[in-house]
Amino acid sequence: MENFTFQNSTKIIFGRETELKVGDEIKGKGSKVLLHYGGGSIKKTGLYDKVTNSLKKSGIEFVELAGAMPNPRLGLVNEGIKICRDNKIDFILAVGGGSAIDSAKAIAVGVPYDGDVWDFYDGKAEAKEAIPVGVVLTIPAAGSEASPNSVVTKEEGLLKRGMYSELIRPVFSILNPELTYTLPDYQTACGASDMMAHILERYFTNTTHVDLTDRLCEGTLKTIIKNAPIVLNESENYNARAEVMWAGTIAHNGLLNTGRVDDWASHGIEHEISAIYDVAHGAGLAVVFPAWMKYVYKNNVNRFVQFAVRVWNVEMNFEDPEKTALEGIERTTQFFRGIGLPVTLKEMEIGDERLEEMASKATMNGKITLGNFMKLNKDDVYNILKLAI
Amino acid sequence: MENFTFQNSTKIIFGRETELKVGDEIKGKGSKVLLHYGGGSIKKTGLYDKVTNSLKKSGIEFVELAGAMPNPRLGLVNEGIKICRDNKIDFILAVGGGSAIDSAKAIAVGVPYDGDVWDFYDGKAEAKEAIPVGVVLTIPAAGSEASPNSVVTKEEGLLKRGMYSELIRPVFSILNPELTYTLPDYQTACGASDMMAHILERYFTNTTHVDLTDRLCEGTLKTIIKNAPIVLNESENYNARAEVMWAGTIAHNGLLNTGRVDDWASHGIEHEISAIYDVAHGAGLAVVFPAWMKYVYKNNVNRFVQFAVRVWNVEMNFEDPEKTALEGIERTTQFFRGIGLPVTLKEMEIGDERLEEMASKATMNGKITLGNFMKLNKDDVYNILKLAI
Repeated sequence: MENFTFQNSTKIIFGRETELKVGDEIKGKGSKVLLHYGGGSIKKTGLYDKVTNSLKKSGIEFVELAGAMPNPRLGLVNEGIKICRDNKIDFILAVGGGSAIDSAKAIAVGVPYDGDVWDFYDGKAEAKEAIPVGVVLTIPAAGSEASPNSVVTKEEGLLKRGMYSELIRPVFSILNPELTYTLPDYQTACGASDMMAHILERYFTNTTHVDLTDRLCEGTLKTIIKNAPIVLNESENYNARAEVMWAGTIAHNGLLNTGRVDDWASHGIEHEISAIYDVAHGAGLAVVFPAWMKYVYKNNVNRFVQFAVRVWNVEMNFEDPEKTALEGIERTTQFFRGIGLPVTLKEMEIGDERLEEMASKATMNGKITLGNFMKLNKDDVYNILKLAI
Repeated sequence: MENFTFQNSTKIIFGRETELKVGDEIKGKGSKVLLHYGGGSIKKTGLYDKVTNSLKKSGIEFVELAGAMPNPRLGLVNEGIKICRDNKIDFILAVGGGSAIDSAKAIAVGVPYDGDVWDFYDGKAEAKEAIPVGVVLTIPAAGSEASPNSVVTKEEGLLKRGMYSELIRPVFSILNPELTYTLPDYQTACGASDMMAHILERYFTNTTHVDLTDRLCEGTLKTIIKNAPIVLNESENYNARAEVMWAGTIAHNGLLNTGRVDDWASHGIEHEISAIYDVAHGAGLAVVFPAWMKYVYKNNVNRFVQFAVRVWNVEMNFEDPEKTALEGIERTTQFFRGIGLPVTLKEMEIGDERLEEMASKATMNGKITLGNFMKLNKDDVYNILKLAI
């Protein structure tokens, strides 16, 4: 086990009708709020009214910024920064999924910063200050509701990059599983794949003696694997929605990689796909992960055997453990397919024309490698993309 | 799943040599520290020197209070409160296990309070303020290093009572598994039983649809069950020590009971035993839990079957599931015995003379019931104690 520091101070307010507490929760933390959300869905479902009424009831002024989209864009972030400065905003409330939250986090660090907010995503600057961010979560997927991460796409060059700072970890996140009843199936499935990917990025490690976090990873994966299909059959099954929602937060709140080196190659590869083709991140991950697994499993067959046996209940093949490992990869692929996700680039209508370009961008023209479980150079990334066709 | 709020802001600094960071960690949080610890063991091991050197290097003044004992006493707490007031202490550093930490927490809420600190333990008052507490952990067991709880014993009447307040959750806890190498085997075993008990108190619930937290509980239990015996055979096995130590924190940091009603009857019963006989809390729990399980399992056989199959890998008896449940209880008992703990009152040299008295004290003369999995009245508690003989 490796040394680590772990702290997650986000207050999780979980359960039915918890969105009605949002005004009370902000009181004392901010007096003028930027209410940031995506499209019109929160107006259709009535959530917009509930949230704004709660803010009004608590005497909190707010300004709105709609339009946060999947793979959130830098342009909107800059617009948000301007609004915040013009209106002396001191708290940002994101209502939505990872896109609204990541966009809100970007605005939060951008407001007190003199330079270009992209500097934080480009690795040119480190955040020193941020406006506090709160969340009402409507899409369990990205785990951004309790993470210190934000991913934004720069329109120019379609660069999708992430930043990390404890300053942008939400001060609170309100999670009401009922708010996820109206999610389209495809989005629910993409969410499941996204949270599973967050765990898999941590699970596949070469760090030894990681019993506890292995077990926590496996338990969280099994919970999603059990409940995601239930949710797709019964969209208003509260308990199954609740399991998926809480699992999505645990998947990415930092607990599951305490003491272990994590990977993140698959996320790096997927970011290049969704930056160019604007596909859903969760769908892209369902395509990349099986290919990545097939490409790297020989690097540590035993870990893939453990994954197959413990997570997928594959019967151990003692004569030929490698077959067990391969069966685990196959079950992962079939699970994604079973919940309605693409598992090849072709199924996302992506051809082989730009594989080279993506491999190049992912590795900064071959200057860096991706991942830790196996260090991937530009050729490796290209080969994985080819496997994903 | 039940609604819940979860927030745990304790910063965990985990790994080799992390105790050397204690001075830096306190800087900015306090300038005059009460250094609170138990007996002389931290001087023998050299930890005392490391900690005090780190404080001095960071320019932090400190006053000492030694003498925190298992089942920490109110007398020492009051002494600590006086020292803090006389010396204008603004931070308390506990170096030790649950006793030193719980005692430190009691001092922390007592200092700014005008009345008797016992009021908080007696349920007569609620804490409004506290001095911040930090921890260097030497005994993985109580989970107090990341919990908002403190248990103290009042000498008069030998009353052992707990309090809860977010104000006493440690601001940081330093966990270096190497510091646990010198623990006597019996104390290591008591620690394992204590942390297992913390999980079992949460695991045995009547709340349904608790897939995720079930899995997290089971995974944490399995980690302790695997690693505690290793540690007893190889006291300087870093990784096994690390697994046990981190599991002990997770067992009691509040995550494992999110969304579920927990029990705590066994702790209530054990507190009466250790208050009178001053036995180690972990040993008392190894005696009480098997008896409690035998007494209550019929209340929800399926949960005990799940426990047996998932935690102890008991082969499911489909013809007679109850036998599976009973086998799980038997394995729990044998595990405690196997790590060198008593599993009957007799083995702790406790006879049946005061069972009635303990049952009466645990239920406040029969005025309250204990637990939630099954509500236990005074007679139930008496019967469980009889089963434990």
